[in-house]
Amino acid sequence: MIFYDCSSAPSPRLVRVFIAEKGIDIPTHQVDLRHGEHLSPEFRKINPYCTVPVLELDDGSRLTSTQGCWRYLEETFPDPPLLGGTPVEKAVIADRVWRIESDGWQAMTEALRNSTPGMKDRALTGAENYAQIPALGERGKLRSVRFLSHLDELLADRAYLAGDRFSAADILAMVVVDFAGWLKISLPAEAVHALRWYAAVRSRPSAKL
Amino acid sequence: MIFYDCSSAPSPRLVRVFIAEKGIDIPTHQVDLRHGEHLSPEFRKINPYCTVPVLELDDGSRLTSTQGCWRYLEETFPDPPLLGGTPVEKAVIADRVWRIESDGWQAMTEALRNSTPGMKDRALTGAENYAQIPALGERGKLRSVRFLSHLDELLADRAYLAGDRFSAADILAMVVVDFAGWLKISLPAEAVHALRWYAAVRSRPSAKL
Repeated sequence: MIFYDCSSAPSPRLVRVFIAEKGIDIPTHQVDLRHGEHLSPEFRKINPYCTVPVLELDDGSRLTSTQGCWRYLEETFPDPPLLGGTPVEKAVIADRVWRIESDGWQAMTEALRNSTPGMKDRALTGAENYAQIPALGERGKLRSVRFLSHLDELLADRAYLAGDRFSAADILAMVVVDFAGWLKISLPAEAVHALRWYAAVRSRPSAKL
Repeated sequence: MIFYDCSSAPSPRLVRVFIAEKGIDIPTHQVDLRHGEHLSPEFRKINPYCTVPVLELDDGSRLTSTQGCWRYLEETFPDPPLLGGTPVEKAVIADRVWRIESDGWQAMTEALRNSTPGMKDRALTGAENYAQIPALGERGKLRSVRFLSHLDELLADRAYLAGDRFSAADILAMVVVDFAGWLKISLPAEAVHALRWYAAVRSRPSAKL
């Protein structure tokens, strides 16, 4: 396997932390997003969607989404489970991951990509250029702030996002909270449940990656 | 279990077709989206996100995303597998589902919700109102057209989206193609691979639901 990563970017961090939590070691190739390596003809042959993470399997096939990479790693290295044990756990984690991606991750990428001068015409990741939409940037920022408050509600009655056990939902939410810092927003002081959870997940060795 | 559905809506159709392909029967409650039942105080107690599908389990817990509902049903009723058999199959299906949701489904909902007069202030599903952003509607329509062409590339060298076997990726893509009709766009005549695939998936009894 080869893991195509970019150590400064939030998207591949989702897979980087997952790999660390599994306790495995995968040869890694750093893709230089800052200098546009992901848009080069060479990288387009690896991933025509021009994004990281990418996980290249031993048969040469490639997974080009966090969901695909996570699923392959979970099925191949089942311990510790990060996508759930029982059917209900698996379903609750899938539910949480979808929600956090939809209401947190997407809101923050919309906010960042539609408001940052250096991202002109890069309002979406991928091979195509799309112009920024300032109103979408503003909506993204509003939704991001709302999401951080909602995270507190989700954690009011449980240690981790899907219950008693650390899971991929916590990896995603941690990366989202750190990503919020790029927008200069953070968990509010009154979000005591989310702050307690954040301290716990940030204390794990994988969080430093 | 109870399945909260709305027979005229694309989102819960993703779960409706999945249930039919599993050959199971789940008591179903129709939610009247047209008259705003999803925004009523009663339904907010069932799903505070004010959306369908919802799958209520026998212990009273509820899954409020297609991903959560699919995962629970797959783990509980494994035959026929719709989320894959081998680790690679499972990962490829997860990859495809994410891509189709991101580039197809989201593009079409952005197009529809940001351009339809009857959806004023409902630019996103959920409990909160968000104003329409016309530029996002236009971008969504452009991306929807591009996605339908891309679907043809994805199907150039395989019978179904994740390989030789029908999967949840095909359910999602079929619902996306049908959803495109709401925007008055369709698979182009030159998309011969996608049209061959579409005829095959539309001929399944589940497609009528």
